[in-house]
Amino acid sequence: MVGGGADAFIGGVHRIASRIDGHYDLVAGALSSTPEKARESAAALGLDPERSYDSFDAMAEAEAARPDGIEAVSIVTPNHVHYRAAQAFLSRGIHVICDKPLTATFDDAEAMERAVRDSDALFVLTHNYTGYPMVRQARAMVEDGQIGTIRVVQVEYPQDWMTSSVENEGVKQAEWRTDPERAGAGGAIGDIGTHAYNLAGFVTGLTGAELAADLSSFGAGRKLDDNAHILLRYEGGARGMLWCSQVAPGCENGLRLRVYGDRGGLEWAQEDPNYLWFTPHGEPTRRITRNGAGATDPSTSVSRIPPGHPEGYLEGFANIYTEAAAAIRAVQDGQSREAAMGKLPGIAAGMEGMAFIRACVTSARDNAAWVAI
Amino acid sequence: MVGGGADAFIGGVHRIASRIDGHYDLVAGALSSTPEKARESAAALGLDPERSYDSFDAMAEAEAARPDGIEAVSIVTPNHVHYRAAQAFLSRGIHVICDKPLTATFDDAEAMERAVRDSDALFVLTHNYTGYPMVRQARAMVEDGQIGTIRVVQVEYPQDWMTSSVENEGVKQAEWRTDPERAGAGGAIGDIGTHAYNLAGFVTGLTGAELAADLSSFGAGRKLDDNAHILLRYEGGARGMLWCSQVAPGCENGLRLRVYGDRGGLEWAQEDPNYLWFTPHGEPTRRITRNGAGATDPSTSVSRIPPGHPEGYLEGFANIYTEAAAAIRAVQDGQSREAAMGKLPGIAAGMEGMAFIRACVTSARDNAAWVAI
Amino acid sequence: MVGGGADAFIGGVHRIASRIDGHYDLVAGALSSTPEKARESAAALGLDPERSYDSFDAMAEAEAARPDGIEAVSIVTPNHVHYRAAQAFLSRGIHVICDKPLTATFDDAEAMERAVRDSDALFVLTHNYTGYPMVRQARAMVEDGQIGTIRVVQVEYPQDWMTSSVENEGVKQAEWRTDPERAGAGGAIGDIGTHAYNLAGFVTGLTGAELAADLSSFGAGRKLDDNAHILLRYEGGARGMLWCSQVAPGCENGLRLRVYGDRGGLEWAQEDPNYLWFTPHGEPTRRITRNGAGATDPSTSVSRIPPGHPEGYLEGFANIYTEAAAAIRAVQDGQSREAAMGKLPGIAAGMEGMAFIRACVTSARDNAAWVAI
Amino acid sequence: MVGGGADAFIGGVHRIASRIDGHYDLVAGALSSTPEKARESAAALGLDPERSYDSFDAMAEAEAARPDGIEAVSIVTPNHVHYRAAQAFLSRGIHVICDKPLTATFDDAEAMERAVRDSDALFVLTHNYTGYPMVRQARAMVEDGQIGTIRVVQVEYPQDWMTSSVENEGVKQAEWRTDPERAGAGGAIGDIGTHAYNLAGFVTGLTGAELAADLSSFGAGRKLDDNAHILLRYEGGARGMLWCSQVAPGCENGLRLRVYGDRGGLEWAQEDPNYLWFTPHGEPTRRITRNGAGATDPSTSVSRIPPGHPEGYLEGFANIYTEAAAAIRAVQDGQSREAAMGKLPGIAAGMEGMAFIRACVTSARDNAAWVAI
Repeated sequence: MVGGGADAFIGGVHRIASRIDGHYDLVAGALSSTPEKARESAAALGLDPERSYDSFDAMAEAEAARPDGIEAVSIVTPNHVHYRAAQAFLSRGIHVICDKPLTATFDDAEAMERAVRDSDALFVLTHNYTGYPMVRQARAMVEDGQIGTIRVVQVEYPQDWMTSSVENEGVKQAEWRTDPERAGAGGAIGDIGTHAYNLAGFVTGLTGAELAADLSSFGAGRKLDDNAHILLRYEGGARGMLWCSQVAPGCENGLRLRVYGDRGGLEWAQEDPNYLWFTPHGEPTRRITRNGAGATDPSTSVSRIPPGHPEGYLEGFANIYTEAAAAIRAVQDGQSREAAMGKLPGIAAGMEGMAFIRACVTSARDNAAWVAI
Repeated sequence: MVGGGADAFIGGVHRIASRIDGHYDLVAGALSSTPEKARESAAALGLDPERSYDSFDAMAEAEAARPDGIEAVSIVTPNHVHYRAAQAFLSRGIHVICDKPLTATFDDAEAMERAVRDSDALFVLTHNYTGYPMVRQARAMVEDGQIGTIRVVQVEYPQDWMTSSVENEGVKQAEWRTDPERAGAGGAIGDIGTHAYNLAGFVTGLTGAELAADLSSFGAGRKLDDNAHILLRYEGGARGMLWCSQVAPGCENGLRLRVYGDRGGLEWAQEDPNYLWFTPHGEPTRRITRNGAGATDPSTSVSRIPPGHPEGYLEGFANIYTEAAAAIRAVQDGQSREAAMGKLPGIAAGMEGMAFIRACVTSARDNAAWVAI
Repeated sequence: MVGGGADAFIGGVHRIASRIDGHYDLVAGALSSTPEKARESAAALGLDPERSYDSFDAMAEAEAARPDGIEAVSIVTPNHVHYRAAQAFLSRGIHVICDKPLTATFDDAEAMERAVRDSDALFVLTHNYTGYPMVRQARAMVEDGQIGTIRVVQVEYPQDWMTSSVENEGVKQAEWRTDPERAGAGGAIGDIGTHAYNLAGFVTGLTGAELAADLSSFGAGRKLDDNAHILLRYEGGARGMLWCSQVAPGCENGLRLRVYGDRGGLEWAQEDPNYLWFTPHGEPTRRITRNGAGATDPSTSVSRIPPGHPEGYLEGFANIYTEAAAAIRAVQDGQSREAAMGKLPGIAAGMEGMAFIRACVTSARDNAAWVAI
Repeated sequence: MVGGGADAFIGGVHRIASRIDGHYDLVAGALSSTPEKARESAAALGLDPERSYDSFDAMAEAEAARPDGIEAVSIVTPNHVHYRAAQAFLSRGIHVICDKPLTATFDDAEAMERAVRDSDALFVLTHNYTGYPMVRQARAMVEDGQIGTIRVVQVEYPQDWMTSSVENEGVKQAEWRTDPERAGAGGAIGDIGTHAYNLAGFVTGLTGAELAADLSSFGAGRKLDDNAHILLRYEGGARGMLWCSQVAPGCENGLRLRVYGDRGGLEWAQEDPNYLWFTPHGEPTRRITRNGAGATDPSTSVSRIPPGHPEGYLEGFANIYTEAAAAIRAVQDGQSREAAMGKLPGIAAGMEGMAFIRACVTSARDNAAWVAI
């Protein structure tokens, strides 16, 4: 693991997610850019001190050289480190599981794309919300034509934790996310908007054609957007709206997707993830439950426990890790990278997210004009 | 009553709403533009046949001449009749309660504005959703500063009843609403978008500055919009989104408003209207119930029954009628029209709605460019 | 109207309910047992002072003698007055619409039964919750066999307004309800338990065989029960539970019914009355909406407005009044009382409620032993 | 691990729960009473074949003899095996984590009590629902007096998976649960009723005094109860109701607790576990969210991720495992068993559950008479 020392919320999430199905052991890390903190964090996690490194470069070099070196690395640093860290491992044939968004800058993203292309290793981007069983169910129902031709896509992702300027009050999570140097050109759009955009595309199978984005920075002195209102036009004629916000009091992690076609509608909310609401047009709305009545293979195969026993965020995240493990095994067994990846989010999803951020920023600078994605 | 014959949903609603608090008797009508249907509808409602008229002109003339003539008239026709009907009564000093949107065309709207100005009678526009107690509660809490400076306004109004092209299948409600001659330039934006825009303004007290509207007509052969995605900018810097749709399967009458300020957030949904969800930033979300704990005067005074005994759409609508009755009495007692109207929606709200429709259409024709409202 | 003067919540409810569909005019009343208050209340309601009476006896006598005398009377007094008031009108052939429970004592109930038998007039008991459209829908679905043989019935009716001893703090509604002289032997079981028991029977069509009741009086100094836990056994083998409470903080008017059979389950909650949740065993739960997809005749015929436009408590109550008006017309047109009443709750439902109260009290005195109902 | 071979749902749950926080490694097992199945299951889980045993006796003996033998064992067999398996390990000083209910018979339970008393090892019973953060929050709020003196406890646990007689259709989970030899005297009351009873006691701190139980077996030919309606009386005067059912279509795993005191009310539902609804009497209901606003230490300390990122069943279960690991370390460090266990459910909770089952069966045989628990 690179990054994810004490205090870093997402590092802990990756560690639990990797453990849930028992496919990973954490054996090495460069857990912080501050050597002392890296060491302490490693000790707290019970890592062999020899395999706690001061930098990802040192780690990549040493692990690649060990006969028992790591097979895969998780990169959970702030965005601006993603490319350099990933490159260090990819170039040595070590598989990379990387947090999103892909990178802080589009230049880095293109470099990342090349690094992935030039490596034999896998690159998995943790668009974890696509790991929820009922998101898989929704996607399958769309593919199956159950909602018909899609007309309207409503996706939103409101949060409230940055309502006040917590970046000035010692909240580390907020500090780097509001700093263009570390986060990149996108604030809310990069941190959560990319998740929303990815989720909508994953479920609908639609490709974004153009967007118009009205970005706001409501927090005093905030340089990056903390609220984004975005109009979407998809190839084929569907229209959409994306709202993401970090300043909406009462909203904790309100990712929610609604899709409407000429035959039916679907609704899913991340905070109540075990249910998918499906309305065949003209019929009563149905509540499809994870692993329960109405659920079919693409969701049941990534469920662990019976309906009514809620699975949550960590299990959805674990599905990405478990599928990555299967993909790694498949590649080791000689399968092609493309086949092994299946529907796992990878470099392409990462580039789409970067294109989304770029289009938003470009549009916003031109008073929310339409910009091709 | 003008309009509201058999088959006309909204006529029945107005009749019940006017009866609930006992302030009105229905004694005369021009209930249909088809004389025979007008007569039959009048008979079905028990009107004196003498006071069932073939046209609103005949009705206005005859009722104005009777010593026991009507004090007020409800106009519930398709939009293109609103102005001519209202003018006939206003010019004779008869108070008018008129359905929204104000008119089918902006020219008619301006004529209506003059007719109201030139009359001594009251003009009330039934933006009925502002009659819900918890909408009044929300407005009062905003005025009271409980959510602080408003930053973000999310309002939506999805329906699904026009998902297929029901206007070609004999559904009268859909026929005139999809006909530019009778409905005007706006489809969904006129029929339901004006309600959503009005509600957001009523609760927040904000004035719309400009908007960018992406209008779609998904129904085959449909001339007017049946889905609208609209970005909003309010004076003072708040940003918003408005979505209205008639093609969203699973959505019945999904008017919903969310308002976020720097001190808190509010959420209200028309389909669950007895509850207002309030989050003071950093504290647990509270459920304020109509006439229950946390509800204060502006909502309790328009509630009839205890909390837990749901009031609904008809009671909210009745509040407009009851307040109109009080305003009529006040004017008859010598109060000024302005004072008597109080916060009742009238010609100004009607003009704002027309400006909203015009701005949407103008923006949409220019590829969703920003247009002043 | 007898009773229902100023302060009396339920009087206002009856008046609105009777007006909603326009079948009643309020023309006479004995609105309070205090003559002055009766007169003031009558004046406030705009009654002809001549037809405001000091007592129900005077009213019954005078109205029966007038050529334009009342056709029907609503009795909305405390329970202990029901019988004598009803008898005064029934004996003169005036139809009676009476609040529940039937009477304060079982002796009065039996006298009421005789009075109804001996009269030609109709007697309607306002078990208003049976007027909700989705309650009708549920009943029809049970009759249609959609949930199969019923096994389990869960019904509950919690409130919180008597959590503290408000009867000692000037709350009139609480004063008479906690006074055995005026309320009868049942506190919560009479006031709300009878509604719950009636609702369960109405929907399931089952007849209660025996019950075991554990009654509590938690309010300091309270003589009647304010919380009841009741086991139910129905004829045919179904088992049930009934909980009613006036001391459950957070519960406003939480009447809720769940019914489970060998083919499916149904769930309905009075506080969210426009929806019925139906699960065919092994399939996804469906949300059936009033007047919407999945709703059929027995509910649509008592609905006024489209789905998504919520109807509430007053409309459900109005359905009882409107059906009573139709029954009165039918009897006037020569139909038998039995045929005219149809499924309207009448004296039989009243006697069942009294038997329920009696069985609860008997059981509770014997340490919650089983008692035949 | 003893039990938990292929097909056994709960074995997988225990394995994941033990992995989530990284405190356990699965190194040995007697995974099935069928040796071949035990071996195959062990292979599938990657166990060293040497440490896959044919019986728990063999396992206990061998592991106790190994220098690297297991420190703790999970027992996840059908109920009738619990005691003998636990005894084998406890007598050798190996800590036991055992599924509930404690045993199939009361004799076994008393033997288990002795075995625990005579051992130095810890005995943890996986009443996993007490591991949910918001259950901890509820308990702390009760202890803190926020709901005042408790008056009413409503707890229910409906499921629907045994609506039809699936035990005759090859569903193994149903087979042993409906077999008195393997399940014991309780069907639904043992399998889920004990969870409900335990949860109510855990949150309220109340001790059950007596109960009256009406047990039903609706499934054709079913020997054990599949539905139970139970009246509860707690020491100190609180009254309660417990409903558990395996034949309620539409209910998946509907464990739900409501507690009402003279100062407030609490509501929690296992299927929506991240929220606790709290009503201080006379104030609006508040939604307290896991790790969010209003949540305090007893819940935040067992939460892993921020509010809005749902944790679920497996995380709640993992909290029991993680606290058991801490308790084992504490005992190894010399702490007393009592102090180390803290509020972890152990033998006492197990005996309470057995007493609950026995009282239910005794009461039911005597026509639901009151029985001391």
